[in-house]
Amino acid sequence: MDKPQIGVVGMAVMGKNLALNIESRGYTVAIYNRTGSKTEKVVSDHPDKHLVPSYTIEDFVNSLEKPRRIMMMVKAGKPTDAVIAELLPHLDKGDVLIDGGNTFFEDTMRRNEELDNSGINFIGTGVSGGELGALEGPSMMPGGQKEAYDLVAPIFEKMAAKAEDGAPCVTYIGPNGAGHYVKMIHNGIEYGDEELIDESYNLLRNMLGLSVDEIADIFSEWNKGELDSYLIDITADILTRKDDLGSDKPIVDLIMDKGGNKGTGKWSSQNALELGVPQSLITESVYARYISVMKDERVAASKVLPKPTGKLEFDKDEVIEKIRQALYFSKIMSYAQGFEQMKVASKHYDWNLQFGEIAKIWRAGCIIRARFLQNITDAFDKDPELDNLLLDDYFKDIAKRYQESIRDIVGLAVKAGVPIPGFTSAISYYDSYRSAVLPANLLQAQRDYFGAHTYERVDREGIYHYPWYKEQ
Amino acid sequence: MDKPQIGVVGMAVMGKNLALNIESRGYTVAIYNRTGSKTEKVVSDHPDKHLVPSYTIEDFVNSLEKPRRIMMMVKAGKPTDAVIAELLPHLDKGDVLIDGGNTFFEDTMRRNEELDNSGINFIGTGVSGGELGALEGPSMMPGGQKEAYDLVAPIFEKMAAKAEDGAPCVTYIGPNGAGHYVKMIHNGIEYGDEELIDESYNLLRNMLGLSVDEIADIFSEWNKGELDSYLIDITADILTRKDDLGSDKPIVDLIMDKGGNKGTGKWSSQNALELGVPQSLITESVYARYISVMKDERVAASKVLPKPTGKLEFDKDEVIEKIRQALYFSKIMSYAQGFEQMKVASKHYDWNLQFGEIAKIWRAGCIIRARFLQNITDAFDKDPELDNLLLDDYFKDIAKRYQESIRDIVGLAVKAGVPIPGFTSAISYYDSYRSAVLPANLLQAQRDYFGAHTYERVDREGIYHYPWYKEQ
Repeated sequence: MDKPQIGVVGMAVMGKNLALNIESRGYTVAIYNRTGSKTEKVVSDHPDKHLVPSYTIEDFVNSLEKPRRIMMMVKAGKPTDAVIAELLPHLDKGDVLIDGGNTFFEDTMRRNEELDNSGINFIGTGVSGGELGALEGPSMMPGGQKEAYDLVAPIFEKMAAKAEDGAPCVTYIGPNGAGHYVKMIHNGIEYGDEELIDESYNLLRNMLGLSVDEIADIFSEWNKGELDSYLIDITADILTRKDDLGSDKPIVDLIMDKGGNKGTGKWSSQNALELGVPQSLITESVYARYISVMKDERVAASKVLPKPTGKLEFDKDEVIEKIRQALYFSKIMSYAQGFEQMKVASKHYDWNLQFGEIAKIWRAGCIIRARFLQNITDAFDKDPELDNLLLDDYFKDIAKRYQESIRDIVGLAVKAGVPIPGFTSAISYYDSYRSAVLPANLLQAQRDYFGAHTYERVDREGIYHYPWYKEQ
Repeated sequence: MDKPQIGVVGMAVMGKNLALNIESRGYTVAIYNRTGSKTEKVVSDHPDKHLVPSYTIEDFVNSLEKPRRIMMMVKAGKPTDAVIAELLPHLDKGDVLIDGGNTFFEDTMRRNEELDNSGINFIGTGVSGGELGALEGPSMMPGGQKEAYDLVAPIFEKMAAKAEDGAPCVTYIGPNGAGHYVKMIHNGIEYGDEELIDESYNLLRNMLGLSVDEIADIFSEWNKGELDSYLIDITADILTRKDDLGSDKPIVDLIMDKGGNKGTGKWSSQNALELGVPQSLITESVYARYISVMKDERVAASKVLPKPTGKLEFDKDEVIEKIRQALYFSKIMSYAQGFEQMKVASKHYDWNLQFGEIAKIWRAGCIIRARFLQNITDAFDKDPELDNLLLDDYFKDIAKRYQESIRDIVGLAVKAGVPIPGFTSAISYYDSYRSAVLPANLLQAQRDYFGAHTYERVDREGIYHYPWYKEQ
């Protein structure tokens, strides 16, 4: 076997699958895990693969071709710092350390700077696609020193998913924490996509009274059109699945409605709040998970808080199509907000993000992969300086054609008492964004009244304070 | 004159007014400001007051009765740390340092701990009421060592606003950062109150087409009923005011619609996200300010993004009353979320917050003062362990009676294209909270499908993973 061109630290499922993925592209891969038995098992399960196991960190580092490329696939946070501390004494200047974990981008910024002071390159890369993606080809979002990325680019381009046009789903994102930042936004957007699908399901189920089977067919149908995406596809599949523990019920009816989270949606929202970006759809999706967790309180409240009494009248097939349109409309608002946030972040952190390239590498491999990402790619190809996705002709046209549908669905859902925080934040965003005048003039008057916070005027330059307390 | 019983550092308008307030209650007050001329001016403007100026920090500290009580009214952040560092060498064990600034509660937690190590007591206190409140009586939210609070309580109780029943609007909130935390939530709630008023104004103006004068009369009328509050009152007043620079236009029409903020709403939202509390109404209010700031983009977008074309039909007077009900309904949801957040924070930070007491001290002096705070006080008097405001009879009854109105208003507003993110987040919260089942079952299935994140089941204990990828 060749001297390994790259090493992977951490043989949990993601690390193991990435190592196997890289090996399958013709590389020899060094592997290491703190608990040696896991390393042994990977090797014994895959005896014919070009895997070089080590059982000390020193042997692992020494086994690698120079400059070394080491990809860490360990738990984000303290474990990552611990592995870096173990590796560091054995590394040479110019080696490339890669963190493929779900790391908070500010940690990556800090580590990149610290390691740079020791002459070590540090790539923080988002890896999306779950276990299967790791094995077969994920979408990858690497950030760090450009010259260090060039050293790993050939491997990354081979291991990444390929879009329909054959382009690898990886590109250099930007300096220091840019890669993990874009992965964070990817995940935030994923929260939004899931929330919108779940609201649509809830409307089909609880407003239209359809069966799980009927809803499976609807998602399956939707997946043939402009909504074509991984998440719609798996939703259709999920809804066909029966209990694996023996009953003949749909599995979805047996799953507890408490939404978990790993923090990336929260980070996206906290960062949007920090940067001053209106990111309502992701945030409402995070809050929807939080309120779902309050199961006992909800069950108790459902017995005492009244539901609406109004009668709904509608044509079922028409409403199904309108829900589809509302979902697509809302998805566009969510991506408009996500790209807006990246635009502001790119300036704030000085990253020079290439939005068209980002849309391109999300076309395959990752959880939010969808036909629609091609439309975003096209929009930024046409105008790399596009201010907001909504101003692109394709998206503007969808907004124009579907806005009445989402308005109708919001009206119906609110009348029916089915919560749709994602849909309503989408239409609020649209209506706010296209409002030349918002009532923040009154807000500024209020703030100036009680707190002397001053205001601008529409008719002249400058900062003003009104003499509210002078005798009139 | 007596030896000063308390000193105030910082003679900007808030510090000066608080010093004059305390003096007016029969105390002698030491005052100090980094720039001595400001101190001089306060003394020369108020020659008959019991104010003792100092021009060095040492003289200032030495002028005080022991144990010393020193209230800092300086800019939050680094300036506060700088003043503490200057004061510290001159203080004795047992002295009480008070920070009355708009400080982030985590900074107060840190300072409380650091100073405690030097034997110095540290009270971080929220002070709400603006400049006028500082002078005439603010609502105060002090946190820190209880025994230190007892040393300042007589002064605080005299200087604070008095509720209708004569109770001072100040009470011991809890250890370390509890006071500044509760002030942060107060401000977050204030963002929500303002947003809901501004949305109501926008609907009256742009959906009903009423004049500013007509809207002033409506708010004035609303202020006589259950909405009776400082913010409704000043809104009515604001809407009667004409341009102070000569035109005969309403001033509100001349104020630029870019909403400013000082960060407390952002902090509230970021903390809610951190603690896992669904705090959608404050957060949407923060985002509404952010999008308002994008004025140029909005003006450009208003020319290309289509508005809705549907015709609205309604009875004007009926809709005005429904807007009033929607506003009150939404306000209740906002406070339910705010008190929920304090409930979770109280456990998380180990503060033992007394929610009834908090509602009580918000009844007067502060920006969110309102008749309605008495209802909250009553609710917690009846049941100090109340899980959610919505479960109290008074609020449950309002929700029951007003829910159809907010549903109608949301339907109309969305059809009219008037953005109402506050109203929609309120009804979403209500409908989510009273939903025994939410679609998070589908979410958990999706997360288990692509990420093996596992799920709970409704029919048995334990953690499960479905064999999605096994041959069916």
